[in-house]
Amino acid sequence: MMLIQYHSIGTIHSPFTKISDMPIQPSGAVGVPGSIEINEELVPALQDLNGFSHLILLYHFHQVKESKLQVTPFLDTQSHGLFATRAPQRPNPIGCTVVRLLDVTKNCLIIENVDVLDGTPLLDIKPYVPAFDGEMADLRIGWLEGQSQAARTIRSDDRFGE
Amino acid sequence: MMLIQYHSIGTIHSPFTKISDMPIQPSGAVGVPGSIEINEELVPALQDLNGFSHLILLYHFHQVKESKLQVTPFLDTQSHGLFATRAPQRPNPIGCTVVRLLDVTKNCLIIENVDVLDGTPLLDIKPYVPAFDGEMADLRIGWLEGQSQAARTIRSDDRFGE
Repeated sequence: MMLIQYHSIGTIHSPFTKISDMPIQPSGAVGVPGSIEINEELVPALQDLNGFSHLILLYHFHQVKESKLQVTPFLDTQSHGLFATRAPQRPNPIGCTVVRLLDVTKNCLIIENVDVLDGTPLLDIKPYVPAFDGEMADLRIGWLEGQSQAARTIRSDDRFGE
Repeated sequence: MMLIQYHSIGTIHSPFTKISDMPIQPSGAVGVPGSIEINEELVPALQDLNGFSHLILLYHFHQVKESKLQVTPFLDTQSHGLFATRAPQRPNPIGCTVVRLLDVTKNCLIIENVDVLDGTPLLDIKPYVPAFDGEMADLRIGWLEGQSQAARTIRSDDRFGE
C-alpha cells in the first residue's frame, strides 16, 4: 500500500449544510446553485476554463468518518460491495461529479447542478469532454438496473455521516 | 489548504510501460487489455461489481514529478491553464478513466480500454451509471472544439514525465 498525499486546491460552496436531505447524485441536483473558491496561487491554472460549459470535479468527502467494505445504498434495501456503489464511505473517500460552469472571476467559479456538501475540499477540476470517452457499448449496470432513475428524486439520510 | 492522505487500493496493469507513445485518452485505447490487482483485504468490497460492464477508475499519476499551472497539451500548440486540460502535471495528480470490466476473480479484475501506465496505483473504483449524470445541455468544450476527436489517434510523448 502506497501512501499518497494531496492538498485541497479550493473549497466548494453549496446550499447543502448537512448530509441529510441532499440529492444523492448529480441527476437530482439540476439547477442547484453553488460556487468554488480556488486557492489564489492557482489562478493561472484557470486560464481558458471559461470556454467549457461542464466540469468534472474530484473532491474529498470530508464528513465521512470511516470506510466500510459493504453498504446498503440509498437505492436498494440489500447490501452491496462498496465498489459496486457510489456511497461515500470508501477506503479513499473521493467524490466525482459533473457541474455546469456559469462564470469565472479571478479565483471564484460560479457553478450549477451541485450535489456536494457546503465546505467540501476540492481536489481537482477537469474539463468535461465526451469525445474523450471510450466505447460504452452493451452497457450493464448490475443491481442498479431499473433503480438508477430514482436517483433524480431520492434524497439522502444520515446513514453515511454525522 | 487541507492535507489529505490516501492509500492505494491496488495496482493497474497495462501494456504501457513508458509514458511515450501511450494513448492520451480512453477514446484512443479501445480494446487495450489490462488488469487490476486489488489489495486482498478489500475483496469483500468487490461483491456485485461483476454486474457492471463499465467502471470509473480514479488513480494516482505516479510518474509525474512536478505540477505546472499552465501547459501545452498534446492536442494544441498553445498553452492553456492546467485545469482547462487533462494533462497529468496537476496540483493533485489524480487521473480518471472509464474501462470495460470483463471478469472478476478473487482480487483480480480483468479490464479493457485501458489508457493507464503499467504499475499505476489505484485510488478508487466506482460503477459507471449514465443515469446518475445531470443535464449536459448546450455543451461547450472551449479550446478543444474541433480537436477532441484527434484524441482517438494521437499518442503521447515524454513532455509530462520521465
